[in-house]
Amino acid sequence: MNKIFVASDHAAFQEKQLLVGELRKIYEVVDLGTHGPESTNYPEWVKLLVENVRREQSLGILLCGSGIGVSMAANRYKDIRAALCRDEDDARMSRLHNNANVLCLSGRKTPTELLKRISSVFLSTEFEGGRHQLRVEQFNLLGE
Amino acid sequence: MNKIFVASDHAAFQEKQLLVGELRKIYEVVDLGTHGPESTNYPEWVKLLVENVRREQSLGILLCGSGIGVSMAANRYKDIRAALCRDEDDARMSRLHNNANVLCLSGRKTPTELLKRISSVFLSTEFEGGRHQLRVEQFNLLGE
Repeated sequence: MNKIFVASDHAAFQEKQLLVGELRKIYEVVDLGTHGPESTNYPEWVKLLVENVRREQSLGILLCGSGIGVSMAANRYKDIRAALCRDEDDARMSRLHNNANVLCLSGRKTPTELLKRISSVFLSTEFEGGRHQLRVEQFNLLGE
Repeated sequence: MNKIFVASDHAAFQEKQLLVGELRKIYEVVDLGTHGPESTNYPEWVKLLVENVRREQSLGILLCGSGIGVSMAANRYKDIRAALCRDEDDARMSRLHNNANVLCLSGRKTPTELLKRISSVFLSTEFEGGRHQLRVEQFNLLGE
């Protein structure tokens, strides 16, 4: 497993700190920020995380208050498949069926213990391929 | 309020039928499909819905099994802000803060009654602007 990159805005700062601490027990984790509770703009964190995930061909985790803002922004990038996951089933299915490479989490709505379990499932599940490969290829062609 | 466009893949076909029936009590709804339970590929429905939402400058609703696949695919388009919403708070915040114009729903995980309530909140909440306008403008610049 390559390095895991993690970033959040201020609204999920505390939860990101706790999650990074937990993931470091198993994975090599690069915490890109934010590094304090001051207000920041989530698109800046998305851009930084995507640059790192692309360079290392790795997986990433993004957090904001709801997880919705970061998931919208990350999917702007053609080779990023960012899945907003609220439970372990979401994490499993988004890897199995959508080949998601960025996990988006809600710092405000998802309890920290569940954030850890969702992340563990996401990082340990492989893409299933098959009929889902066609669908991933199809939506890789979408955009503009 | 302009027309509302709705589309789903087969995995949320029954739930889409029920939701469209309910929304038609209040809104002018165009049901783009799918029109039966046969297996289809969600990116095709995303493309069709985005074309219609853009042309009419309206709001759209997309459903698939988890809602994750359609939300990934819809956000490939520069002027689409697609929010996966699992409860009414998600719907409210994604309109207030993210100016979402496409609501993504899970046919498999969200009870039909809740799908209706989420949709009602989404369709009746306006963007708040202010500091959130900057963030929306920022992520509109992301991509490639």
